[in-house]
Amino acid sequence: VTSTALFAARATGITGSVIDSSTSLLQAQTHDVVRLAMGSPAADAIPAEQFERLAAEVFARAGDGAFDYGPTEGEPGLRAQVLRLIADTEQRQVPPERLLITAGGMQGLDLACKLFVEAGDLVVVESPTYTNGSATITGYQGELLEAPVDGDGLVVAVLPDLVAAAGRTPKLIYTIPTFQNPSGTTLSLERREALVELAESWGALILEDDPYTPLRFEGEYLPTIEALAAGRVPVLGVRTFSKVLAPGLRVGWLTAEPEVIARMINAKQSMDTCTNVPLQRLVEAFLAEGLLPAHLERQRRVYRERRDAMTEALAAELEDIEYRCTQPAGGLFLWLTLPEAIDTQDLFDAALAEGVAFIPGPAFSASGAFANALRLCFASSSPERIREGVRRLARVVRRRLECGGSH
Amino acid sequence: VTSTALFAARATGITGSVIDSSTSLLQAQTHDVVRLAMGSPAADAIPAEQFERLAAEVFARAGDGAFDYGPTEGEPGLRAQVLRLIADTEQRQVPPERLLITAGGMQGLDLACKLFVEAGDLVVVESPTYTNGSATITGYQGELLEAPVDGDGLVVAVLPDLVAAAGRTPKLIYTIPTFQNPSGTTLSLERREALVELAESWGALILEDDPYTPLRFEGEYLPTIEALAAGRVPVLGVRTFSKVLAPGLRVGWLTAEPEVIARMINAKQSMDTCTNVPLQRLVEAFLAEGLLPAHLERQRRVYRERRDAMTEALAAELEDIEYRCTQPAGGLFLWLTLPEAIDTQDLFDAALAEGVAFIPGPAFSASGAFANALRLCFASSSPERIREGVRRLARVVRRRLECGGSH
Repeated sequence: VTSTALFAARATGITGSVIDSSTSLLQAQTHDVVRLAMGSPAADAIPAEQFERLAAEVFARAGDGAFDYGPTEGEPGLRAQVLRLIADTEQRQVPPERLLITAGGMQGLDLACKLFVEAGDLVVVESPTYTNGSATITGYQGELLEAPVDGDGLVVAVLPDLVAAAGRTPKLIYTIPTFQNPSGTTLSLERREALVELAESWGALILEDDPYTPLRFEGEYLPTIEALAAGRVPVLGVRTFSKVLAPGLRVGWLTAEPEVIARMINAKQSMDTCTNVPLQRLVEAFLAEGLLPAHLERQRRVYRERRDAMTEALAAELEDIEYRCTQPAGGLFLWLTLPEAIDTQDLFDAALAEGVAFIPGPAFSASGAFANALRLCFASSSPERIREGVRRLARVVRRRLECGGSH
Repeated sequence: VTSTALFAARATGITGSVIDSSTSLLQAQTHDVVRLAMGSPAADAIPAEQFERLAAEVFARAGDGAFDYGPTEGEPGLRAQVLRLIADTEQRQVPPERLLITAGGMQGLDLACKLFVEAGDLVVVESPTYTNGSATITGYQGELLEAPVDGDGLVVAVLPDLVAAAGRTPKLIYTIPTFQNPSGTTLSLERREALVELAESWGALILEDDPYTPLRFEGEYLPTIEALAAGRVPVLGVRTFSKVLAPGLRVGWLTAEPEVIARMINAKQSMDTCTNVPLQRLVEAFLAEGLLPAHLERQRRVYRERRDAMTEALAAELEDIEYRCTQPAGGLFLWLTLPEAIDTQDLFDAALAEGVAFIPGPAFSASGAFANALRLCFASSSPERIREGVRRLARVVRRRLECGGSH
């Protein structure tokens, strides 16, 4: 099965995907594998001891309704903490009626598409982009308009031509502007402004998926598109604690106009009634104790060191090979483009046998492009393991090139 | 706004519902209210101390991936425990490929409808039925065929006529066969058999929503429709730990044919990636330690006592008023039908002011029927509180009747 077929199958919700099969392959591995595939925070970056202490407090307060149904819009205490967090980090006041607590960022994307994507609606997506995001759009029968990404993120300047060629304006623009998944690139301030203007001219909504902004380890803070737009265009702001705290909690949030939030609360009630209560309270306690800044500080230091370890190892191990890689200033991922003779999907099994895992490029595009690219997660392995993983990757790439390409 | 309008608005996902407004009214109350409205287990029936101890163990094992993404199909350990639970309680072996762990029963219903309900599909629902269940069906643009419920559950014998009148066969039959929400009635064995035969003749799926079977406190165990059907018709079995353990955990499961489960895993990946991991492990630990049977034993004893307290209080307090109420042999709810002069939606505010809350009947039917009925939860209040609540209810009913009906 080709990756395009796999992607399409996944996008229509019929069967597995490249990532699914990679996951099951990974899970089946018993030998030593450097896991650069999945997008989880480092196990040693999860504040497990703080969680343990705070969970004991949450679980001791059962009488407070910690195990009962909670309000669909989220626990009042967590909601207050999230609004304070936005005020502290973005210097803007968000009123409570613009906030919904979600089961991670994924539910935010699902809710956004459930409400706004109807059969045949045109949706701009970055190419490459986050697979589950674009799959959700096609799951609601939206049509993807893939727009290229370069070192400064989405190439906004080509959008008018792409839209003209499509013959109709998009209803929604799905973007991961900061430390994009999978490319690791960040949309520049100028492009953010231009994107808002284009959306305004088209009457389009912007779906801003931003799990990574708090994980910036160099360069200057950029305002979110939501903050920049300042009400000029409707923005659905999808955020999550998955990358800054832990994905297993399944706690995230979404901000939007009050009437949109009201409809989303209604939709969420028929999806899961409410987000799990004890772990909302755990996150609330973590924020209320002011533990987040120091935690993020440590995470950023660790991730910068690992990003450096990875880019330096790539430079050292692939020095005789033509490659390009992005230089993320935050987040978890970088994007590696290998010589055209390499098919990263073909490479996957050999790399796994060699002891290194990545996600092949075609998994990040509905059109199956990026055959010679791949995504590497630098966040979840130690520098030593990253260097070993890159050495292994370089070995299979070199072997493949010596045998005259992919086959 | 009439309840029909509210229900329709809710069903199409536009705005709130009777239950939503009841909930916010309830939350706004500061005076003493006997809460017979919501469908939560009793606070004192939640095994909080066991949860506290087990959570400490789960949270101490962060290295095991307790905070990372988990498999979309559910944690392997919980999956094994659920399969054992089914084997123990239903004496049947379910292979793992027929099982999906869900974010509560609600996500099971949503997944079922997402996969099987398309615009215009006819879906049989009980009348009255669980609001969020029927709202999910109409959310996917299914058309409801409402079928009556009597003391033995869904009146299966009238289905052929209803279907003939509709001019087409249903694609799906949504049923809560055991201790139905809201009526508290249970589908008899004969009717279960007849329903399976009808579904078979129509080529329809059965969506069996069964949160309550473990909470039977009298009468004989009845096999689930899924067990009875034994593969003759496809059954989507939606189950949850919400009522037997605690709803705040948001952990449930769904059983179906392997190819359906494979598609649901794919759909769930674009909905919430996976169910929260720590609380799956908490439930796993609870089951693995064999704590469920004694917990259920206690719950059943408490709920029977409360059902008795409620039916006896109704008989005593409403003795001069013509009313009917169901006699549930398990579960959480009973259904009270008052004289036709009473409009239970009109009654709601006065009852709240008097200090008792219930859910008005029209909230449980898309057609807004059951104007003079209401749902009472007997599970979550003590016998003393139940008696006090029924006294208050009787007072407002009597006052309303003396003033010549609703207005």
